[in-house]
Amino acid sequence: MGTYSEEAALLYDKTADRLYPTITGVGEAVAAGEINEGVVPIENSLEGPVTFTLDLLIAQPTLFIRGEIDLPIEHYLLAKSGTVPAEIKVIYSHPQALGQCRQYLEKNYPQAEQMASLSTVLCVTDSFESKVPAAAISPRRASELYDVDILDRGIQDVANNVTRFAVIGLSDHAPTGDDKTSMAFTLEKDSPGLLHRVLGEFADRDINLLKIESRPTKQLLGEYIFVLDCVGHREESPMKEALASLSDPISMLRILGSYPRWKAPI
Amino acid sequence: MGTYSEEAALLYDKTADRLYPTITGVGEAVAAGEINEGVVPIENSLEGPVTFTLDLLIAQPTLFIRGEIDLPIEHYLLAKSGTVPAEIKVIYSHPQALGQCRQYLEKNYPQAEQMASLSTVLCVTDSFESKVPAAAISPRRASELYDVDILDRGIQDVANNVTRFAVIGLSDHAPTGDDKTSMAFTLEKDSPGLLHRVLGEFADRDINLLKIESRPTKQLLGEYIFVLDCVGHREESPMKEALASLSDPISMLRILGSYPRWKAPI
Repeated sequence: MGTYSEEAALLYDKTADRLYPTITGVGEAVAAGEINEGVVPIENSLEGPVTFTLDLLIAQPTLFIRGEIDLPIEHYLLAKSGTVPAEIKVIYSHPQALGQCRQYLEKNYPQAEQMASLSTVLCVTDSFESKVPAAAISPRRASELYDVDILDRGIQDVANNVTRFAVIGLSDHAPTGDDKTSMAFTLEKDSPGLLHRVLGEFADRDINLLKIESRPTKQLLGEYIFVLDCVGHREESPMKEALASLSDPISMLRILGSYPRWKAPI
Repeated sequence: MGTYSEEAALLYDKTADRLYPTITGVGEAVAAGEINEGVVPIENSLEGPVTFTLDLLIAQPTLFIRGEIDLPIEHYLLAKSGTVPAEIKVIYSHPQALGQCRQYLEKNYPQAEQMASLSTVLCVTDSFESKVPAAAISPRRASELYDVDILDRGIQDVANNVTRFAVIGLSDHAPTGDDKTSMAFTLEKDSPGLLHRVLGEFADRDINLLKIESRPTKQLLGEYIFVLDCVGHREESPMKEALASLSDPISMLRILGSYPRWKAPI
């Protein structure tokens, strides 16, 4: 309870009520049909892609992206009630949250060791179990669930900190008129211009490329799986034609899903 | 002592003798002129880019890449002399090393909690200080420096595990005839086909694209800095002409350096 993933899930669906401790756990619950939709972090405006989620989606052909949620992130510094800030020796959080507060921690807690926890909520109990004075970096919600003092808030280095979550399921989403498509592919061989040719199939059709990532194939250093987000739905023109044209230079293509672009609730 | 970075540095230069605890520390020592060359990890064949290093190079305009080293990685499982493997409750390592041994740990040590350490050597002392039976994932070299038992070796999930290190300095390298060039750039605005046009300047000149990464600008979710590795030296044709042609769609271009491609010692 109390993670950013839970906040994102509730923003997407007020009735969301199942919680899983890890990204793998959410993926397995969706794949097994225990839940129809799951919410996992996929990208952060400061740290970049959540590579663990990308690798999971690439490796699991039964999982599709069927929605997205953009959640503004505000990190709180929490500590067991009565903790003296100047005495803090250890600060626990998920490595991505520690990374997002790097400058703040170097400036305000240079003496504190940074320790990794498995989530931005488990770090609260990790800090409780510490033998030396400790703090945790967590969402606001965690401060309501535990007996903690709020030592500081908004401690992320860059004010504009947004995490994008993917809604995953066993199928993607029907066209809505304002959609995007995520896909992963490998190129047949490493020769000049192949990626340029693939991107040309989109550019020539005025399809806007929103994102390009490369993930290692895990076979050879320098071999990549490309992950692309483009505007449009895979069942509609011109995306449909662009995807159909890709067979030639591409050795593997997996459509991760077409889904509506996120609109913040008013 | 005993990190993979140290092994890489010694492979590059047998007289390498200064050790820094963090990537930031190496960057600062090079920028301050304390050392002429520093060695930092930049990419792994399983986990992908070392984003911290990419972000450091993008942000530090005085630092250049002047060489690269590919080091095969073999992870050892070490524990304080006399530790009983079945009793191990905690396994410490750098998060990237833990990620590279994910399946091995799930299969062989499902009961053990994974804890992050700041390096693949500090995890050995972290495991020594643990109140419960603990182990550490480290390079072979660490087993010679500490009083440990080798519980297992080659525990990485994929046999072909190679880390690429960058040699950084205050200038890049003169042409050698077999070079590559790393660069980072942002595009002027988010419109269809801009990245395709940039890649076209290389493809049209038969310049092989070795790698493309995107890093967040840290300003707006969905805005990226692209990092490209291409074959060729920035002072030589056709790379020289390709770089000169990029001014139009690009709003920021930083040449991270031209340098000889790695050749393993015979």
